[in-house]
Amino acid sequence: MTTIIRGGTVVNADRAFRADVLRYGDKIVAVGESLDAPASAKVIDAGGQYVMPGGIDTHTHMNLPFMGTVTADDFFTGTAAGLAGGTTTIMDFVIPAPRQSLIEAYHTWRGWAAKSAGDYTFHVAVTWWDDSVHADMGTLVREHGVNSFKHFMAYKNAIMADDETLIKSFSRAWELGALPTVHAENGELVFQLQQELLKKGMTGAQAHPLSRPPAVEAEAANRAIAIAGVLNTPVYIVHVSCAEALDAITRARANGQRVYGEALAGHLLIDDSVYRHADAAYVAGHVMSPPFRGKQHQAALWHGLQSGNLQTTATDHCSFCAEQKAAGRDDFTKIPNGCGGVEERMAVVWDAGVNSGRLTPSEFVRVTSTNAAQIFNMYPRKGVIAVGADADIVVWDPQGTRTISARSQFAKGGFNVFEGRSVRGIPTTTVAAGNVVFHGGALTAQEGAGRYVERPAFAAVSAR
Amino acid sequence: MTTIIRGGTVVNADRAFRADVLRYGDKIVAVGESLDAPASAKVIDAGGQYVMPGGIDTHTHMNLPFMGTVTADDFFTGTAAGLAGGTTTIMDFVIPAPRQSLIEAYHTWRGWAAKSAGDYTFHVAVTWWDDSVHADMGTLVREHGVNSFKHFMAYKNAIMADDETLIKSFSRAWELGALPTVHAENGELVFQLQQELLKKGMTGAQAHPLSRPPAVEAEAANRAIAIAGVLNTPVYIVHVSCAEALDAITRARANGQRVYGEALAGHLLIDDSVYRHADAAYVAGHVMSPPFRGKQHQAALWHGLQSGNLQTTATDHCSFCAEQKAAGRDDFTKIPNGCGGVEERMAVVWDAGVNSGRLTPSEFVRVTSTNAAQIFNMYPRKGVIAVGADADIVVWDPQGTRTISARSQFAKGGFNVFEGRSVRGIPTTTVAAGNVVFHGGALTAQEGAGRYVERPAFAAVSAR
Amino acid sequence: MTTIIRGGTVVNADRAFRADVLRYGDKIVAVGESLDAPASAKVIDAGGQYVMPGGIDTHTHMNLPFMGTVTADDFFTGTAAGLAGGTTTIMDFVIPAPRQSLIEAYHTWRGWAAKSAGDYTFHVAVTWWDDSVHADMGTLVREHGVNSFKHFMAYKNAIMADDETLIKSFSRAWELGALPTVHAENGELVFQLQQELLKKGMTGAQAHPLSRPPAVEAEAANRAIAIAGVLNTPVYIVHVSCAEALDAITRARANGQRVYGEALAGHLLIDDSVYRHADAAYVAGHVMSPPFRGKQHQAALWHGLQSGNLQTTATDHCSFCAEQKAAGRDDFTKIPNGCGGVEERMAVVWDAGVNSGRLTPSEFVRVTSTNAAQIFNMYPRKGVIAVGADADIVVWDPQGTRTISARSQFAKGGFNVFEGRSVRGIPTTTVAAGNVVFHGGALTAQEGAGRYVERPAFAAVSAR
Amino acid sequence: MTTIIRGGTVVNADRAFRADVLRYGDKIVAVGESLDAPASAKVIDAGGQYVMPGGIDTHTHMNLPFMGTVTADDFFTGTAAGLAGGTTTIMDFVIPAPRQSLIEAYHTWRGWAAKSAGDYTFHVAVTWWDDSVHADMGTLVREHGVNSFKHFMAYKNAIMADDETLIKSFSRAWELGALPTVHAENGELVFQLQQELLKKGMTGAQAHPLSRPPAVEAEAANRAIAIAGVLNTPVYIVHVSCAEALDAITRARANGQRVYGEALAGHLLIDDSVYRHADAAYVAGHVMSPPFRGKQHQAALWHGLQSGNLQTTATDHCSFCAEQKAAGRDDFTKIPNGCGGVEERMAVVWDAGVNSGRLTPSEFVRVTSTNAAQIFNMYPRKGVIAVGADADIVVWDPQGTRTISARSQFAKGGFNVFEGRSVRGIPTTTVAAGNVVFHGGALTAQEGAGRYVERPAFAAVSAR
Repeated sequence: MTTIIRGGTVVNADRAFRADVLRYGDKIVAVGESLDAPASAKVIDAGGQYVMPGGIDTHTHMNLPFMGTVTADDFFTGTAAGLAGGTTTIMDFVIPAPRQSLIEAYHTWRGWAAKSAGDYTFHVAVTWWDDSVHADMGTLVREHGVNSFKHFMAYKNAIMADDETLIKSFSRAWELGALPTVHAENGELVFQLQQELLKKGMTGAQAHPLSRPPAVEAEAANRAIAIAGVLNTPVYIVHVSCAEALDAITRARANGQRVYGEALAGHLLIDDSVYRHADAAYVAGHVMSPPFRGKQHQAALWHGLQSGNLQTTATDHCSFCAEQKAAGRDDFTKIPNGCGGVEERMAVVWDAGVNSGRLTPSEFVRVTSTNAAQIFNMYPRKGVIAVGADADIVVWDPQGTRTISARSQFAKGGFNVFEGRSVRGIPTTTVAAGNVVFHGGALTAQEGAGRYVERPAFAAVSAR
Repeated sequence: MTTIIRGGTVVNADRAFRADVLRYGDKIVAVGESLDAPASAKVIDAGGQYVMPGGIDTHTHMNLPFMGTVTADDFFTGTAAGLAGGTTTIMDFVIPAPRQSLIEAYHTWRGWAAKSAGDYTFHVAVTWWDDSVHADMGTLVREHGVNSFKHFMAYKNAIMADDETLIKSFSRAWELGALPTVHAENGELVFQLQQELLKKGMTGAQAHPLSRPPAVEAEAANRAIAIAGVLNTPVYIVHVSCAEALDAITRARANGQRVYGEALAGHLLIDDSVYRHADAAYVAGHVMSPPFRGKQHQAALWHGLQSGNLQTTATDHCSFCAEQKAAGRDDFTKIPNGCGGVEERMAVVWDAGVNSGRLTPSEFVRVTSTNAAQIFNMYPRKGVIAVGADADIVVWDPQGTRTISARSQFAKGGFNVFEGRSVRGIPTTTVAAGNVVFHGGALTAQEGAGRYVERPAFAAVSAR
Repeated sequence: MTTIIRGGTVVNADRAFRADVLRYGDKIVAVGESLDAPASAKVIDAGGQYVMPGGIDTHTHMNLPFMGTVTADDFFTGTAAGLAGGTTTIMDFVIPAPRQSLIEAYHTWRGWAAKSAGDYTFHVAVTWWDDSVHADMGTLVREHGVNSFKHFMAYKNAIMADDETLIKSFSRAWELGALPTVHAENGELVFQLQQELLKKGMTGAQAHPLSRPPAVEAEAANRAIAIAGVLNTPVYIVHVSCAEALDAITRARANGQRVYGEALAGHLLIDDSVYRHADAAYVAGHVMSPPFRGKQHQAALWHGLQSGNLQTTATDHCSFCAEQKAAGRDDFTKIPNGCGGVEERMAVVWDAGVNSGRLTPSEFVRVTSTNAAQIFNMYPRKGVIAVGADADIVVWDPQGTRTISARSQFAKGGFNVFEGRSVRGIPTTTVAAGNVVFHGGALTAQEGAGRYVERPAFAAVSAR
Repeated sequence: MTTIIRGGTVVNADRAFRADVLRYGDKIVAVGESLDAPASAKVIDAGGQYVMPGGIDTHTHMNLPFMGTVTADDFFTGTAAGLAGGTTTIMDFVIPAPRQSLIEAYHTWRGWAAKSAGDYTFHVAVTWWDDSVHADMGTLVREHGVNSFKHFMAYKNAIMADDETLIKSFSRAWELGALPTVHAENGELVFQLQQELLKKGMTGAQAHPLSRPPAVEAEAANRAIAIAGVLNTPVYIVHVSCAEALDAITRARANGQRVYGEALAGHLLIDDSVYRHADAAYVAGHVMSPPFRGKQHQAALWHGLQSGNLQTTATDHCSFCAEQKAAGRDDFTKIPNGCGGVEERMAVVWDAGVNSGRLTPSEFVRVTSTNAAQIFNMYPRKGVIAVGADADIVVWDPQGTRTISARSQFAKGGFNVFEGRSVRGIPTTTVAAGNVVFHGGALTAQEGAGRYVERPAFAAVSAR
């Protein structure tokens, strides 16, 4: 069967133009004005609306076992929530325990992800080092379509990678044509600050941001970039949250280095006043790392997206319910770190980015989809409305509004960091792999319909 | 009749892919693997080669009356030389004399340009201000397809625009949806330095760069950017030649301001050692403004292109022969300013940019064609190999080599700043508006075949 | 007669140490522990207090005819108010009208200043240019002890200096060994913004800061620094009020250029919320140029003083009473620009600078006195507690407190921008030229007791 | 007995002035014009010369056991060489082996230093961490006059301090009022680069700089500064050798952080072309860490001294003879790291700094003596010509010249990195602790005459 999206304005990263879009199977088969379509074709009316490539969330954690519990969203509920928000592909993380085989962990995550409603792919974390890790990286790249490896510079005594691991893994990634990525926080500083705060009796969630000031993030970002620069590898910094870390990226880029940065919807929209709230559960609900920052940092992150020094937006979707968060009631270091967002990213970035004039619609597409597809080598299968591309499409009503609330969200966890925020600009229809999965407020995502996306190493003659 | 370019790798700004390209009339009508073509179609074999959108040179001066003489290249010889080098569109300048009507000057230039062999379009200079200029800007935008206005911050006592003119013209451009551009040099400083040098008896061409040090350019760039920032207009800086001016752009962009910068092939490749040559005619042959700079500035400009802080490459093609240059034999301030390059830009940028690993082929296309088309609103008619685009195509042999020399160039003037440089990566065929105009070393450009390209104001829902 | 200040801690720019200070005539004649003094000596008990060089306010306007009126404070009341606050020397400005002889203006100001109670000296403004100005600058330096010249980059159609004047005057200053200083605001931008605001009906005092945003100041600072850099002269930027202008200074200094910057007490302490006050007279009372800025700029200015990128503190004391300010009731561009502060500077800088830990006491002395004396070549006559120095001394009680109010101030004008602010750290005794002029809250300043301070050009083998 | 230095110009950090200087015992007892002196006084004629505080070399390694050998200069020959060059105080390093008691190491070094001819004091290195180190730091500060602790971020598998040690030691220093200092190079990166180079067969001394590129130093400097910033301690970066590390300091200082930086005479004067010399022994003679850098870095370091972003100059004097250097003939990582310079620092910094116009004589005194005395709390005993100060005096002939050579030097090692360099500006007389120790080219230094200088923690009400 065929679907035709009629009368909208197609928005790609390079331009916007009036065109119909024809879908057959899981692919886009025609893009043009006044297209012919079979009489049997399902028609979606996009009059007055934008037709954009489905969003790619470069940073989620579904079904994650973390800090003694497991996230509220599994791969089905998490990807389904994404589809409701216009995100058709997620990039999740395989995180091996120290000394665990990367291949084994990879298969575990693949098993968990089989129930996904939307497409998914994996960054694999390098949390330790020996020869088997070196070998497994090769296997993952060559046989399993993995082209990015994640390194945590925080979480001492757990999954933190020291400089030796960073250097060896970055070098190995370079050999393989894969991209190293980092969570940039100096884990040693975080640990010492946590100890000091606890010693002073500051055990509540309010202390969380004090244990992870911007300088802690900027230091690590600068260090990862320096290592990458010396080894001549590109590097991608996940969840850049503060002006100082962005400055490190901007400096390196201006010096000709290939450095990429990702901003989270939460860091773009929410400031650190949430940590001064009277309700401890509310505060705990906002505990994530890096934490929310002062308002000047939000302005800086938007400037990063505008200038092209940041390329992607994501969420670090990693939801825990109130009971889980309560594990850290008496010790903020035990609060499971994480917040949601996969369902809201597209709408809040549009509302704060496009309605304010910071971004054009094409720039919105770049930072929510196209750049991710190009950087992680899924383009032009993903990230563009074009013949031959996957039929991952979001129909966007720039005048539609809604008010975000945990009560009406599809995601689990019972909490929403964007609670009460009204947005103008919302998805009216989401098409994933050719299927209408969200329309008129109704989510019809199918468990298991999502496909694993293999991402080859190196973009042969690429856009990068 | 139809042409098919077979077996090449199409390179666009976003990606590269194997495809044939079919041309009918002046348009590209199909792009895809193993295309069918009529038996009568002319076949161009692009095996092992790249097929790229024709270059856009954003900065040329053909037929320019300047400093008491007229450039060696007119619009026919100049555009033809461009075609031989893979550049299918030039952006030239209408430069009214102070007190001259902008409309009148525009028509004069249109007349001169009628003989062009390749497509052309015009920036119009605002060299003075009164209500008629305000009105004429509106007419040019609304009726003549002009969407960019040029301002010279140098050339005191001639065409220099003072701050009042800059402010009024930038404001007017903003109203009209047009883009202000500037030649950034503090003309007052240049003038005083010239007077001082002459007073000291330093009258030779070697003194030229001393009268225009980097700080003179950086000051003006910073000033134009500040004015644009205060008025909330975008701004485009032509021929950025030094690290300090680039820094001003980079700072503004990192602060979220829409600032664009252009690098000249000459500034990217040639350093200021040319001014220390023993032969005065050789030195005079390199007199242009801004002048060639020290080697560290070239590295900076490449970093600018790599980081996206500079978007376009051009030449400021403005050729004078030795007799013309000799007018300043006894007073360097009387040497007609200008050098050539329209014919060599694509090859030297490829050689120094792609062969060195600084740029991927897709990035090469961005900085030689696509960005120019997008910034100046000619996209996707220009700047991309896609169905519906103008059939302006260059077939590029990455292994082909040639040695540049004034003796073998098509451009006039008898001098070449790239003399003796060998490049790897050259055009083998150029198609302009559907016609093969250069092939196998033979130039078959037709006088008058070039079209004037109208550029509407504002990009409706654009990529920026 | 002799005075001995006993038991205090002498604070100089280089260190602090316990010592008595002996004064004879107008000079300090001994500094040391347990000094002998004649039985007849007047004893000032400085136990538990600091003994510091009298403050130098590098920027005041007493008796200034400006915008159709004359400031509330003349040289007697203004210098007397300074003495009450611990400031023993002011640097005022001779401002010739365009086309007026600099020498004539100089003598006019000398006449007005004869009634000063404290020492004074003059920067002379260069507001226009011809050969007589060139000549007069020489006369002022060689015969009248002037070693600094001021340039207003703002105030179009009045005293604004264009680039040609800046270049010629800076060059002349360099020849003479004098220091050029600038009021950095782009007067053309200010003028156009004013016209636009008035056109939109925004005539109230609240519009004042909108006509002079930070970019307007930063542009001019950058331009003055560029001109100075090209001409190889040092340059001093008066009343740096925003982060962006400071950045221009910091960049130039880091590049080895000799650039100095001055911060006003007002800009360090007061933010732009004063312009959102409901009372128009209150808002008008805060109209000065550059205007007060957002809080982040205050943080930046303190960083400037801490890092040594800013060297001096001043006030731009230029007081007008409410009736005078009312002249601009219906047109904010007609409000006489200026605020007071000469009496409060030392206390507010101490309170916000030393009590907060930003500055040590020695650093306080540097930025309130020593650096000014060195930069303007009055050192070691001024700026240090040492044998042979002028007996300009302030005894400072770090525990003393007072609340600032127009009701209790000595200065005229009936308004105080620091109204209601409580400070800890106040002068208890001021000695000027050997005389106790303020003690125990009583001001005993004598009209005419102040001396004109000649400042020779060039510091021979200096500390610069 | 008494000495009088007659007829010179005294140069202090704050100014220069004509004065005689009278010495009695080890102190300066009078400074003034036309001083009276006892008939018996020894007279030193300083006519036409400068009289300056003796130099302080903040970074030397005498008698150092390092990389399997011991430096050529012991504390007698090393300090004596310093005296011949006008340096009267050295700051050397106690470097405990990992697990060795700091107190024990301190006493070992005190023993070696007893033979010193000039005054000396010690930074103590923290090369490992446990509770005893915490305790020993307290003992050293409170009982032994140590107020600075050194941390090596390089030398993996030897004395490298990891982040945990840095954090704990910086915190401890803050409690004690002591200053943490760091050798900033990322030891992990150095190690991996060394292994790679050796693996590729690049075993010669030429490979040394390739194993320690500027990014390796800049990363570590940035990290140490970040840690200090988070912990709110000041920090001092030793031997800043490259623009990028200086940038990290400049950024932090501009942000209000108390960061100090030291430049070595060698890094200021010598570029990395020495590593391209044909003679392997010559190359090995220049192996030190950080290595010599490209010319642009030298320009940057001078700018650092001019702007006040760098405060001190030193040498890292650590001399080895050719036989010792030959230990690394087949493996550059085994070449003992170190070069000389204690004897030449004052002259080469004067010649390149003052003769070029970069520094005034007073600024020369700041960066060779006064700043060091203030930062390390030896002021005003050291660092100034003033009554009560130590009689550590150098009489400086600005017209005197000499050509530096290993053949004529007093230091041991038989090699000189300044070989063949001619300088204008040399010491003619050095007075140390009141004794003439160098005069007319003759060195009369006495073994054991040097004193250990205790440096208390915290400068109570200081200049800092």
